[in-house]
Amino acid sequence: MLRFASIFIASVAATVAAKPPALERLEPDKAADGDKSTLAWYDARLLPVEGKGWTDTAEFWHRLPARAKGVVRDPVWTLSTNTAGICVRFVTDAPKIAARWTVTSSNLAMPHMPATGVSGLDLYVRHEGQWRWTGAGRPGSTSSSEAVLVDNVPAGTHEYMLYLPLYNGVKSLEIGIPPTAQLFKPAPRAAKPVVVYGTSICQGGCASRPGMAHVAILGRRLDVPTINLGFSGNGKMEPEMADLLAELDPAVYVLDCLPNMTAEMVRERIEPFVRTLRKAHPHTPIVLVEQAPHQAARFLPSARERVDRKNAELRATFERLSDANVPQLTLVPGDRLLGVDDDATVDGTHATDLGFVRMADELEPVLRKLLK
Amino acid sequence: MLRFASIFIASVAATVAAKPPALERLEPDKAADGDKSTLAWYDARLLPVEGKGWTDTAEFWHRLPARAKGVVRDPVWTLSTNTAGICVRFVTDAPKIAARWTVTSSNLAMPHMPATGVSGLDLYVRHEGQWRWTGAGRPGSTSSSEAVLVDNVPAGTHEYMLYLPLYNGVKSLEIGIPPTAQLFKPAPRAAKPVVVYGTSICQGGCASRPGMAHVAILGRRLDVPTINLGFSGNGKMEPEMADLLAELDPAVYVLDCLPNMTAEMVRERIEPFVRTLRKAHPHTPIVLVEQAPHQAARFLPSARERVDRKNAELRATFERLSDANVPQLTLVPGDRLLGVDDDATVDGTHATDLGFVRMADELEPVLRKLLK
Repeated sequence: MLRFASIFIASVAATVAAKPPALERLEPDKAADGDKSTLAWYDARLLPVEGKGWTDTAEFWHRLPARAKGVVRDPVWTLSTNTAGICVRFVTDAPKIAARWTVTSSNLAMPHMPATGVSGLDLYVRHEGQWRWTGAGRPGSTSSSEAVLVDNVPAGTHEYMLYLPLYNGVKSLEIGIPPTAQLFKPAPRAAKPVVVYGTSICQGGCASRPGMAHVAILGRRLDVPTINLGFSGNGKMEPEMADLLAELDPAVYVLDCLPNMTAEMVRERIEPFVRTLRKAHPHTPIVLVEQAPHQAARFLPSARERVDRKNAELRATFERLSDANVPQLTLVPGDRLLGVDDDATVDGTHATDLGFVRMADELEPVLRKLLK
Repeated sequence: MLRFASIFIASVAATVAAKPPALERLEPDKAADGDKSTLAWYDARLLPVEGKGWTDTAEFWHRLPARAKGVVRDPVWTLSTNTAGICVRFVTDAPKIAARWTVTSSNLAMPHMPATGVSGLDLYVRHEGQWRWTGAGRPGSTSSSEAVLVDNVPAGTHEYMLYLPLYNGVKSLEIGIPPTAQLFKPAPRAAKPVVVYGTSICQGGCASRPGMAHVAILGRRLDVPTINLGFSGNGKMEPEMADLLAELDPAVYVLDCLPNMTAEMVRERIEPFVRTLRKAHPHTPIVLVEQAPHQAARFLPSARERVDRKNAELRATFERLSDANVPQLTLVPGDRLLGVDDDATVDGTHATDLGFVRMADELEPVLRKLLK
């Protein structure tokens, strides 16, 4: 315990100024007693969870509250059952960590996004003060998978973060460690989360694994909790979404919906959306993100013009709101979000890990300044 | 034709100093006459093909000659039927370009690599002197797919390069353009190719699309033909592979097999392999690439040590050969090949597009110097 305590002090110093809270040790799942496996299994719902904005959800791993059903459009509701951006945190001295998980859809992959990103798990460890990738849970061929995430871990107690699937739901998730090892619940982090509302790109399409969505990358770099409210094809900034987002109390709101909107929708919807948030949270920074260029736009004028029109509407909205003295608004230009080589996506629109790192590179300094 | 001629001069000025050769216009496939499609289809085998080291192949799209069967190990032979690194070049004034293709295996994707990379097509255009991505051919749900690669192309005649699937074979490939448009065969490029021999990573695992394997990226940046001799799990530097590679006459050989070898294999096999190439080609530069660190190696000593031992053997081999005055050898260190954030792979070993861009960043200046 002493060894762990010192690691804990160092690792959360940035977010928790007081002395480290006591760690609660977990007991393995009793239901797993009859299991012939040599591992002890723990229900991940008992661990601190980040990335959920609401606790009053219909199922534990949903992203919107149960009462949102019928209020938000059906596709938004369906997508809210995907676990994009949700992660569990734990501390263990285990030399080996495994997971077994069952996803809600047997469509484990998309043609342009591998099963590891759509339905897989992704493990990071805090190592020498930084979150470092340490193992992925690759899905098998059915909805239920079991995988060793990391093995031959050096002695000591380490702090981990396990990301859940980006484009699938989770029915059950268990963490497995050798019976002689101990699993601890770290205290919830004190920092307010960064909330990002957006499209398929925000949801993580098409990252190779859950930790490579740019919202997750930003969470690690800034060492703050994040809430991913990306809804593939359906980030359209309806008033009911503004009401839901206004219920949260984040450190920063990031609004990144242009790829799912027409220029007309941008003109009509963004100002009232921002005003709803601003009314509920007079001082919380709101970041408006322009759409990144289609990756063939340099060659294809039609692809360029479509995005240019929407970004022009967003800038006009930003100017109107600023002229009306709505405070704490930031506009992030889209032109360099994906870099300059036009190679940052799988299909012109959806970022690969390359695109997501570049998006994080652009957004990190903006958020770092606002979080100060 | 005048318009095209001037584009051609500008675009190949780097590799062809003389006046542009006449362009041969292709006739659409007669067999397609009965097709109800509104496109005219052309067999891609009639176009200039790059990335094939041999023409005496059993099937047109194979990477090794027919006589290699039974000489190389069976898995090497099987993998040589994958079209990694093969591309076709064409020139057209078409406002729309489509493709229809049939792959040899109905396993269109891998759990950690999407179908777009395993079985898809990838189109680049030469735009303002640089190769730029312009469209991908996403596979459908069966072995045969048809896709529009690009549409609404601006007027004029443009030069394209179409990459074939990385981890599947191709039975047939046709290019479709509107019947009123013309398809031309550009002259073969005069520059000798860069030949890269390696493992699954070299073959392109796990790029999101064929153009994002680092060998393809390097080919575009350096504007030279490349030959990808990556064999997943089977880049083991056997003497028969040295004999085959010695038959080629490249500008540079790049040998990047360590991930598939043990330290003992590195010690025993690399020196004779290099001597075979050197005997056949006394002055052709040979680049030996160290293995990049496993992306969890910072945290896991066992992962670090395994790679360190192999790299130490490679450095010792390089020193022995240099001491023996074997000329034109270059050693590329592995420690920065994947960057420093440990996020460049899908599974610790296989590069994503992020990892491939970083590998290209490290190898580009080395090759640029050797190609001068």
